[in-house]
Amino acid sequence: MNTTEPLSTEDILALSQSLPLWRIEPSGAWMQRDFVFKDFLQAFGFMTQVALLAQSQDHHPNWSNVYSSVSIKLFTHDCSRLTLKDRQLALAIDQLC
Amino acid sequence: MNTTEPLSTEDILALSQSLPLWRIEPSGAWMQRDFVFKDFLQAFGFMTQVALLAQSQDHHPNWSNVYSSVSIKLFTHDCSRLTLKDRQLALAIDQLC
Amino acid sequence: MNTTEPLSTEDILALSQSLPLWRIEPSGAWMQRDFVFKDFLQAFGFMTQVALLAQSQDHHPNWSNVYSSVSIKLFTHDCSRLTLKDRQLALAIDQLC
Amino acid sequence: MNTTEPLSTEDILALSQSLPLWRIEPSGAWMQRDFVFKDFLQAFGFMTQVALLAQSQDHHPNWSNVYSSVSIKLFTHDCSRLTLKDRQLALAIDQLC
Repeated sequence: MNTTEPLSTEDILALSQSLPLWRIEPSGAWMQRDFVFKDFLQAFGFMTQVALLAQSQDHHPNWSNVYSSVSIKLFTHDCSRLTLKDRQLALAIDQLC
Repeated sequence: MNTTEPLSTEDILALSQSLPLWRIEPSGAWMQRDFVFKDFLQAFGFMTQVALLAQSQDHHPNWSNVYSSVSIKLFTHDCSRLTLKDRQLALAIDQLC
Repeated sequence: MNTTEPLSTEDILALSQSLPLWRIEPSGAWMQRDFVFKDFLQAFGFMTQVALLAQSQDHHPNWSNVYSSVSIKLFTHDCSRLTLKDRQLALAIDQLC
Repeated sequence: MNTTEPLSTEDILALSQSLPLWRIEPSGAWMQRDFVFKDFLQAFGFMTQVALLAQSQDHHPNWSNVYSSVSIKLFTHDCSRLTLKDRQLALAIDQLC
């Protein structure tokens, strides 16, 4: 399966099983997970790890931070949909915390 | 002058002089600057420097990143207005690039 | 007590009580702690947190990294001895992991 | 050419041409470049960029930092010699500054 092809409706359903902590937009346009840490130190340490993952997978998030909160939204810019690249990055992020 | 007291209307006007690259909400609720870099590497290197500034000034931005773009919004959470703490952080950020 | 004054022999002894995971050079010239993480991702996430602590305390380590290993040596450059600044940074580092 | 095979004597000579800022151990055991920045902020911003490069190339440096100084030593751990992986990472680091 091509990593940059939009996921099918079935794939989207399977996604919500393997990534229960992510909010998945039903039509497969994006998925989002919000994190809250103890403080900015923890939040930015996590962000640096996500940055390293993103760079090595050559797939980058739309994300924001306010103090101890980090919000990560994933989708594939080429097609404006979720693809296997998003699934791969989300799984790697989930293993961080 | 207290660093956590909302800036006066006069201060807000002066702010736009010393920080010409920032968009300052006229009532003094916030200010924002958007940055575009060559790639994610440059963008996240910059974000790490801003994080170091923020932590050492104990004043943290509302910010977001998508690949090579970084958007930084500043205001003081205690009073939901601009204060001298925002001015200080913005000036330090401007010296980075 | 001045934070940049060399610790006394008594202070050095007390230091080894409050920082049991650090190797403290007996004459008080430096102290060192070596960390091993799961991988580079974990190691560099930790290093970023230490960098934020160091910058906000305006006291910086002599440190090195190889993949998952991080070695941190602390002393105060002004006097080439351990001071309260080193104690403070070491305690903050220990709270990270 | 295999990226993890030790460079030949000829390759080592060519290396010193394409990487004039690096000190190359004549037998090809390692190469090193020392950087001095304005302050810790600049140094650690650079280190974060090198960390992103290293992770995406799956090749990591032996490196150390003291305030504004960063020292990077490269070699390939599997064979304890310089390989094309070191050349590739050094060239990418040189493009940062």
